[in-house]
Amino acid sequence: MAIAVVGSLGLDTIETPAGRVEEVLGGSAAYFSLAARHFLPVSLVAVVGTDFPEEARRTLEHPEVDLSGLEIRSGKTFRWEGVYSEDMNTRETLRTELNVFETFRPKLHEGIRSFRNVFLANIDPVLQREVLDQLARPRLVLCDTMNYWIHSKRGELLETLKRVRILLINEEEARELTGESLTHRAARAILSLGPETVVIKQGEHGAFLQGRELYFTCPAFPIESVIDPTGAGDTFAGGFFGALARMSRLTDRTLRAAVVYGCVMASFTVEDFGVGGLLRAKRQEILRRAEEIMEMTRFSLNDTPRILR
Amino acid sequence: MAIAVVGSLGLDTIETPAGRVEEVLGGSAAYFSLAARHFLPVSLVAVVGTDFPEEARRTLEHPEVDLSGLEIRSGKTFRWEGVYSEDMNTRETLRTELNVFETFRPKLHEGIRSFRNVFLANIDPVLQREVLDQLARPRLVLCDTMNYWIHSKRGELLETLKRVRILLINEEEARELTGESLTHRAARAILSLGPETVVIKQGEHGAFLQGRELYFTCPAFPIESVIDPTGAGDTFAGGFFGALARMSRLTDRTLRAAVVYGCVMASFTVEDFGVGGLLRAKRQEILRRAEEIMEMTRFSLNDTPRILR
Repeated sequence: MAIAVVGSLGLDTIETPAGRVEEVLGGSAAYFSLAARHFLPVSLVAVVGTDFPEEARRTLEHPEVDLSGLEIRSGKTFRWEGVYSEDMNTRETLRTELNVFETFRPKLHEGIRSFRNVFLANIDPVLQREVLDQLARPRLVLCDTMNYWIHSKRGELLETLKRVRILLINEEEARELTGESLTHRAARAILSLGPETVVIKQGEHGAFLQGRELYFTCPAFPIESVIDPTGAGDTFAGGFFGALARMSRLTDRTLRAAVVYGCVMASFTVEDFGVGGLLRAKRQEILRRAEEIMEMTRFSLNDTPRILR
Repeated sequence: MAIAVVGSLGLDTIETPAGRVEEVLGGSAAYFSLAARHFLPVSLVAVVGTDFPEEARRTLEHPEVDLSGLEIRSGKTFRWEGVYSEDMNTRETLRTELNVFETFRPKLHEGIRSFRNVFLANIDPVLQREVLDQLARPRLVLCDTMNYWIHSKRGELLETLKRVRILLINEEEARELTGESLTHRAARAILSLGPETVVIKQGEHGAFLQGRELYFTCPAFPIESVIDPTGAGDTFAGGFFGALARMSRLTDRTLRAAVVYGCVMASFTVEDFGVGGLLRAKRQEILRRAEEIMEMTRFSLNDTPRILR
């Protein structure tokens, strides 16, 4: 019942209005694993160079995070540097050094090939399919992507989407992928591309899920001060997929709750640089935030017959 | 228990990706009244010129909309022309002719001075205070404003806010008013300026309400095709204030439901040009959309103890 994640690990240099950090642990597989482990064991498939710091590796080490699929290649680790705007809603990439990630061809070892739950983080859609080809009987495939692949490998991405059960994508990318300017129409258009469910990440506005017969919205958990939004989307994926896979069945009820846990987990990540906030997430606080989201969204329509003329 | 609204009436020329209309009935008082009338009688205080078309007046005529406070002045009616961007999230004003609205000094007749519920639509904050000065015992004062007043009459606006119970403002304006870049922090900062409650309009992302001890979020009702967003904010105000005033007491329960009705009413407006969609709103469909918002937002955390490690 564990989850395999295939994605990136890297060293991020991040500048936000709140400060700057250099070469901290980053990458989609890091955020995803450190969030999903609260729900299920995670096996990580990624590549780093021989310069990957011992401290970064120790950060990932956890009883619920299996690093046996972590490949260490001769060369340098993937590096990314970015700077966020004053309101943190946009960011500029200053530097991307793919290094060993450039020739990453995920090879799943025997133990992972039998996994039923897999998260294909934002990598080349051709590689995402290569991962699927190695899985014996994938049951729940969650896939992320980004505008770069939408524009440069659209055909390959569409091929991959045919084999994906749930697509996770942000609002702007959903519009770019489908050409629909209304986000919920874009979400529905995605359902005709293969996925039976799509989750649209809306940053500070939360997320919504569109299924064939389900539309569920969830606000972001309100954070006192946002320090660094890097990794919030992959953390959402970890909370969402972790909770969903743990509940085993995909029903209206489990999908709704999974979106809430996605929003809750993402709220920890934005509270500090890198994975710092996520590392401090504790069971009690996860539960408290989920309950607070319920409190933020519940209402009653009992008065309606009386007030509506 | 009726509501007085003091705002603008005008003739709008609107171009959106869906088409173009010329000189249709518009203005904050029109949208507000046509939404609020579903909950309570509304008395409208506004000014038009002698050229105000008979058809526009007939559109406003309704058993629940009192036009005795509508001043007809020698001169031309307020006109506005704007064009929306492809995604309708931004618009450009091509023309504003204030005409008789330029020298509008709202005079409340005796019948309206005793009103307890008043909506101060987006007009000069000095005029908003002049309205308050004419009211005998205002109980529930809802106020709207815009970036123009935030920048050009900040001091006057702050004076007005001291006398306002609920401020209605959009996301960007809340940030500009307070200097806070996180919207929910901006909302809390507004509570120190006078209002005990603030409602932040977020367009296609819905709205949220921040009170001293209440934080409630509500998604926008998803519309099949957005034709014209003009007036959505004032329509929200009409649904919100209509429902709230009708329920009489300000409690967590009534405030939450009022935000939902605000979102529901706004969804009718964006479905057609001008007030066309709003005019077609019927009791049954209002109720259905409110119930659908409940369906879109409800979830259960019953699984939590079992799934969280």
